[in-house]
Formats: sequence, C-alpha cells, structure tokens
Amino acid sequence: MPGEHSSKQYDMDLETIRSKVLAMGGLVESQFQDALSCFRTGNIAQAEQVIKSDEGVNNLEVSLDDACSHLIVKRQPAANDLRTVMATIKVITDLERIGDESTKIARAAKSITERGVTTINHYETIRVMSISASNMLRDALDAFARLDGKQAIKLIAQDEVVDFEFRSIMRTLITFMMEDPRTISGALDTLWVAKAIERIGDHAKNIAEYVIYIVEGKDIRHTDYAATQLEDRTSN
Amino acid sequence: MPGEHSSKQYDMDLETIRSKVLAMGGLVESQFQDALSCFRTGNIAQAEQVIKSDEGVNNLEVSLDDACSHLIVKRQPAANDLRTVMATIKVITDLERIGDESTKIARAAKSITERGVTTINHYETIRVMSISASNMLRDALDAFARLDGKQAIKLIAQDEVVDFEFRSIMRTLITFMMEDPRTISGALDTLWVAKAIERIGDHAKNIAEYVIYIVEGKDIRHTDYAATQLEDRTSN
Repeated sequence: MPGEHSSKQYDMDLETIRSKVLAMGGLVESQFQDALSCFRTGNIAQAEQVIKSDEGVNNLEVSLDDACSHLIVKRQPAANDLRTVMATIKVITDLERIGDESTKIARAAKSITERGVTTINHYETIRVMSISASNMLRDALDAFARLDGKQAIKLIAQDEVVDFEFRSIMRTLITFMMEDPRTISGALDTLWVAKAIERIGDHAKNIAEYVIYIVEGKDIRHTDYAATQLEDRTSN
Repeated sequence: MPGEHSSKQYDMDLETIRSKVLAMGGLVESQFQDALSCFRTGNIAQAEQVIKSDEGVNNLEVSLDDACSHLIVKRQPAANDLRTVMATIKVITDLERIGDESTKIARAAKSITERGVTTINHYETIRVMSISASNMLRDALDAFARLDGKQAIKLIAQDEVVDFEFRSIMRTLITFMMEDPRTISGALDTLWVAKAIERIGDHAKNIAEYVIYIVEGKDIRHTDYAATQLEDRTSN
C-alpha cells in the first residue's frame, strides 16, 4: 500500500511536471504573440524565429509525455491522482498544437511580406479576434496554473466569441475578394491566419475543460456544462 | 509483484479497449465516407445523419478515455505495457478529431446544397485528394489493428502527397475565383472541405506514429524517422 511518503513523492514529481508544462505554456504563448507581431509588421527575421522555436516546443511535448509515463509507472497513482496526470497529458497535446498554429501564422506573415501583398490591411482584419484568442490562452494557462475551475468555466464561453469573430472576418474577406479579385491571394493568406487563431481559441477551451476535469472530476467535453454553470453563477 | 494472472488480466482488458477503439475507428471511417458522399450528391438528409452521428463518436471518446484510466489504476502496468495504453489514449483523441472534420465536411455539403451553388464541380476538385486521405485512414486503422509497424511507416510518407494535393486544389480554386468572382463563396466552401480532408490525413499520420511507438518503442513524432526507414527498406 502506498504510504504518505510515496504520496508526497508523487506530489513532488507531479509538481515538477506541472511547472514544466507551464513553462511550455509560456513558450507557446510567446510564439503566438510573436507570430501575430510579425504578421503585423512583416518582420521576416522574427517570423523565422517563431518557426525555428517550434522545435523546442516539439521536444518539450515528447519529453513531458515521457515524464508523465514515468510518473505513472514509478508512483502508481490512485484514480484521483491519475486524473490529473491524464488531463496534463492532454494539455501537453493542445499546447503543442498551439505551437503548430503559431508557426502557420508566422509562415503566412513571411509569405505575404515576401510577395509584397499590400492590398488589404491584413492585421487590422484579425486584430480584435487575435486579442480575444490571446486572452483565452492567457486565462487557460492561468486557470491551469492555479487549478481555478471558475476561471476555466468563464473562458469556455469566450470560444463562441472567437468563432463569431472568425465568421465575421470571413464575410469581410469575401466582400474584399468580390470587389477586387486581385486581393484574393492575400485575403486567403489572412483567412488561414484567422483559421489558425480560431483553432488556438479551441485549444485554449480544451485546456479549460481539462482544468475542470482535474478540479471537479467531471469530464465536460461535448456537454454544455460550462454554459449551465455560468448561468447559475451569474443569476445568483 | 504482478504475477502471470494479473498480466493476463491486463492483456484481456487491453484487448477489450483496443477492439472498442477499432469500432470507433470504423465509425469515423464511415462518417468520413458518408460526408464525402453527401458532398458529392448534395444529399441533405445524409449530411444531417453524419452531423448527428458525431455525438456517438464523442461519447466513445469520453468512455474509452475512462476505460484506459481504469485499466491503469486497476492493473498498474509496467513501462512497456503502459506505452500501449498511452498511445491508445492519443489514438482516441485523433479519431474524435477525424469525426469533427467529417462533420465539417457534412455541414459544408449541406450549406452548398441549400444555397444552390453550382458554379464549380466541387466534388471533382477534391476527388483525388479525398481518395488519398481515405486510403491513409484505412491503412492507419489497419496498422493499428494488426500493430503493423511497416505499414505505419509506409503511410506516413503519404501525408506529403495529401499536402501537395491540397496546395494544388488551393491554386485551382484561386484561379476559379479570379476568373469569376461569383464563384468565391462556393470556392471557399470547397476550400474548407479540402482543409478538413487534409487534416484527416494529418490525424491518420498521427495514428501511424503511435503504432510505431507501440511496436518499436520509439517516439518518432517530429522526426524524419519514417522517411529514413522507408529509404533503407526500399534501397535493399
């Protein structure tokens, strides 16, 4: 039977992993901000830096997955403790995907700048949406750091805002393209960037769902649990 | 120390989970095929069926994740055995995402049919790519069923083909849109479908990588291991 000693060891090992996952979160957050920044400024060197930094994120994914496996084998956690490890493994996957999406934004920024496309103010089109998604990511990492279920529930509702903004961007870009077919190629680049930002919002929402799974023990994926909770809490 | 009995129990439990994951794989494979079919025919009832079936896929994700956690807590597998469970959990995530992407294709089919857009032969544009991605998915599930590392390595190379076909579709659609701006809205729908298919190819590739992780114990994500292996084997 695992005694207090083993359980303390487990807690310590888990805390080490969690702090590394948070460092990974900080890394992909910078990646995302830098990608948006070079999409705004057309700084190719910065775009290349973002693309290059993805290797570090990928390595973190592999080594953290490995650390989680080791933790399970060595400490054989009980059901409650295992839940945290499982959710952490899923969070790691989402963080890696956020890195991928940021890389796509950086690639689009590079491509637009190199082709000298200037017919649309690309950044202005996605500005509001990128702020919403950035806030979601920051809040998701914050909720994961503090295991704050309330904050997680709040931010899940934000995903609808980002989706709404995405559809609005799409309509704007279609109008541009129809008015002046020369803008089509540049508008599509912007559309892919908007799509990448929308997906980063999705991943932030996933992370929030895993936080709720850790804190409340409820698997709320594919349910409207967060919306119901939010209604209950705001109506009180 | 876990004896032979415990290990046999573990094998049996794992086999039960694996067969359910394969059933989930069969379900998302049908979802994908049905989504493509209604994109071709414009059958709205079928599109709605695909969208509805996603609930079943989502429920399978949640219950299979749970089954994997139970297996770990109950059987406390050693490092080697745990590897299979971990990879299975990741495969489940990819299968659920394939279901999501199929649902997106069905929604696009519905939207195109309802709007009566007929200026582009949408299906013809994505036909070749959809066959490539379907083959990848079938091979990935097959490799997972038979734990066939060789097949997994082969299909990872196919992902480049799908990516190439996607870029070619994008160029075709840009040409259409520039020639006749009235095709823009319909072309974008087709582009989202192509994007969904490309992502299904990505997920099939991920599944293949997890098969290699199970069979060979190597985490080959973010490496060119598969390409190297393929060269070695074809040059002999």
